[in-house]
Amino acid sequence: SAADAGADGVTLTLPTSDLHITYKLKKDRDYILRSTEECVTYAKSRGLTVEFLAEDGSRSDLDFLEKVFTKAIECGADRVCLCDTVGVLTAEKTSEVVRRLSANLKVPLAIHCHNDFGLAVSNSIVALKSGAQEAHVTVNGLGERAGNAALEELVVSLNVLYGCKLNIRMELIYETSKLVSRLTGIFLQPNKAIVGDNAFTHESGIHTHGVLSNPATYEPISPELVGASRRIVVGKHAGSHGIEAVLRSMGLTVTKEQLSEILQRVKALGDKGKQITDADLQAIAEAVLGLPKVRPIRLKELTVVTGNRVTPTASVKLALNGKVITESATGVGPVDAAINAIRKAVSAVEPIQLEEYHVKAINGGTDAVVEVLVRLRKGSKVVTAMGARGDIVMASVEAVLNGMNTLLVDYEKIKGGSKS
Amino acid sequence: SAADAGADGVTLTLPTSDLHITYKLKKDRDYILRSTEECVTYAKSRGLTVEFLAEDGSRSDLDFLEKVFTKAIECGADRVCLCDTVGVLTAEKTSEVVRRLSANLKVPLAIHCHNDFGLAVSNSIVALKSGAQEAHVTVNGLGERAGNAALEELVVSLNVLYGCKLNIRMELIYETSKLVSRLTGIFLQPNKAIVGDNAFTHESGIHTHGVLSNPATYEPISPELVGASRRIVVGKHAGSHGIEAVLRSMGLTVTKEQLSEILQRVKALGDKGKQITDADLQAIAEAVLGLPKVRPIRLKELTVVTGNRVTPTASVKLALNGKVITESATGVGPVDAAINAIRKAVSAVEPIQLEEYHVKAINGGTDAVVEVLVRLRKGSKVVTAMGARGDIVMASVEAVLNGMNTLLVDYEKIKGGSKS
Repeated sequence: SAADAGADGVTLTLPTSDLHITYKLKKDRDYILRSTEECVTYAKSRGLTVEFLAEDGSRSDLDFLEKVFTKAIECGADRVCLCDTVGVLTAEKTSEVVRRLSANLKVPLAIHCHNDFGLAVSNSIVALKSGAQEAHVTVNGLGERAGNAALEELVVSLNVLYGCKLNIRMELIYETSKLVSRLTGIFLQPNKAIVGDNAFTHESGIHTHGVLSNPATYEPISPELVGASRRIVVGKHAGSHGIEAVLRSMGLTVTKEQLSEILQRVKALGDKGKQITDADLQAIAEAVLGLPKVRPIRLKELTVVTGNRVTPTASVKLALNGKVITESATGVGPVDAAINAIRKAVSAVEPIQLEEYHVKAINGGTDAVVEVLVRLRKGSKVVTAMGARGDIVMASVEAVLNGMNTLLVDYEKIKGGSKS
Repeated sequence: SAADAGADGVTLTLPTSDLHITYKLKKDRDYILRSTEECVTYAKSRGLTVEFLAEDGSRSDLDFLEKVFTKAIECGADRVCLCDTVGVLTAEKTSEVVRRLSANLKVPLAIHCHNDFGLAVSNSIVALKSGAQEAHVTVNGLGERAGNAALEELVVSLNVLYGCKLNIRMELIYETSKLVSRLTGIFLQPNKAIVGDNAFTHESGIHTHGVLSNPATYEPISPELVGASRRIVVGKHAGSHGIEAVLRSMGLTVTKEQLSEILQRVKALGDKGKQITDADLQAIAEAVLGLPKVRPIRLKELTVVTGNRVTPTASVKLALNGKVITESATGVGPVDAAINAIRKAVSAVEPIQLEEYHVKAINGGTDAVVEVLVRLRKGSKVVTAMGARGDIVMASVEAVLNGMNTLLVDYEKIKGGSKS
């Protein structure tokens, strides 16, 4: 049916380990040899390119595996593939098996690694160095259980560490990874190599300081290589250089002593496990500098209603620079309605865009604390802010108002005013 | 101050690569040698055990690195550590450097690997095989950027693949990983090796069939070894064996033809990227079996209100087996209030527990579709169900009602009724 559908080639899979032959198929080795002959011969008779996969090849008797591959090649298979179906290959075993197979086979050998022990990428590298000519990979390392060898890790390793030129547009790796993550709904942990959110993020003081003077100090891979960009964040390991830079962008100039005090408070907050946003840093700086806590926007009243027979609707009353504004809006849900109402109210006076709205996965009960992280922009100024509440509507409102207030406060005016 | 605080030992870190010495410290090699002597001598004079870390050791001139280590050991360092600070070690380089260092050093050598290229675990294994006596690891592979070598991957690899006995209670690995994830707020991707949600999950038909007849076919690591448990899920790769088992638990007996039709529809749904829950499977089975679509619970009315000055409150009117029940409840937020109201209304008649409430991370805008997954229990019967809407309240209500309906439907009664 692959041939009928107009395909150019097929991959044919048969298990070669006694474990799989006996327990899964309830057949014997002869059956595998006969089936190999039958399937490959038929596929070739239909004019298809054939890659023949030995499932659980890594746990197979090597003599038998070679026999099956030989049979497949005799029948016309164009490539054969050793599958490490359950990821049990070690570097030593990979090297040994691939060397032996590739020395005797007349067609290219492929390797298909699984990541159950976290070794899929390193085993693929060993296989390629030992004579394999093809490696099976997946974007983001997706696949059964712990997945397969990650395309991004293998490609970047081969390129940067081994100097291989590959026919791959590496600058699209980051974007492709995000696309696959969105389409599959399978998110990546922040500390995922190459494509995780933290892969090019520097927080620790020493690291940030190093990267600012020479990126190579703590950046083995240039973010541009894979289409990503560097991010420096405030956090519990933050150093004075990074924090001073962020404060400057907020319009705040600090003395050495003030900077050191701010740094200490940031670290104390971070030690409690809190993610530190621009809004948090601003609040800390204001306290240390003795600035009045000016919040241009104050929420006076918010009411949101939703249900199965009502259009989610919110009304909001807020004070913006002392002037009271009342606004209402609908939305696809209560969060959307509430934020729409606030944006309408504020944007009439100040043009602020909500660039990103992110809610961390909620686990546990319906009363779990919800963490909302937003990124807002006013002209070229961008800030992050967070809200955390049991109520997702109020957490979202808190995050957005924290961010808007961070963007709107004008320290020149305040300091000028308080000093005069 | 470590000594004053009563610590038994310290790790002292100094960079040894010219890159770090020049750009980060703006010093020279002599400064590093002098500092090594000073720091180690002082720490030893305070009676501390000292592990001396060569930062960016993997990019250092090997002769200089050896000189620094020798100096540290002369001054009393008890252990030295080669840091692959930016994760650029390959297996070849690791083996070469560790062999040379460990042959000449008089104290144990440790290795500290980063995972920028996805090679931290395999490099740690190579180092231990080449003469290193200690490896630095972190639970879940946490750490700067792409993190460090993951404890769980290294420990299980050494134990299962290399037959090493380690003084580690492996059965606590899974629980420890979950704890660290919860405390740090750093979640794990489903396809994370050993501790990811999918590590011991089988969906694909072939795989499930194999595991049911002999777990070893597709399980390289026994889940019990690390304190985890096997999970078989319905999905687009599901096979007849797995689906028949789930249907039986719902009280549905199917013919071979019906099973094949159900399987096809499950796959079609899965191909659209949808996660298939018990409730989905039930709806498909009902359609194929020609059973009347019986939903014991029907939502007639739901109204939820929240805001900054109101207690989140929900009122619900639903029909349960034809009887109309009206209930109201408050909660920490609109979702909690709505679900509380429904639970109150239903539990007066049927005892159902909400065991798990999970919302996938929301990315994009405040109008993004929210996916809610719940697990409900009635006695020994457990089902999963999902809701997906732009409104998180309605998505949660949908998920809970889907699950409750799956639990409450009694096919014996329906089939008996329709046949009589």
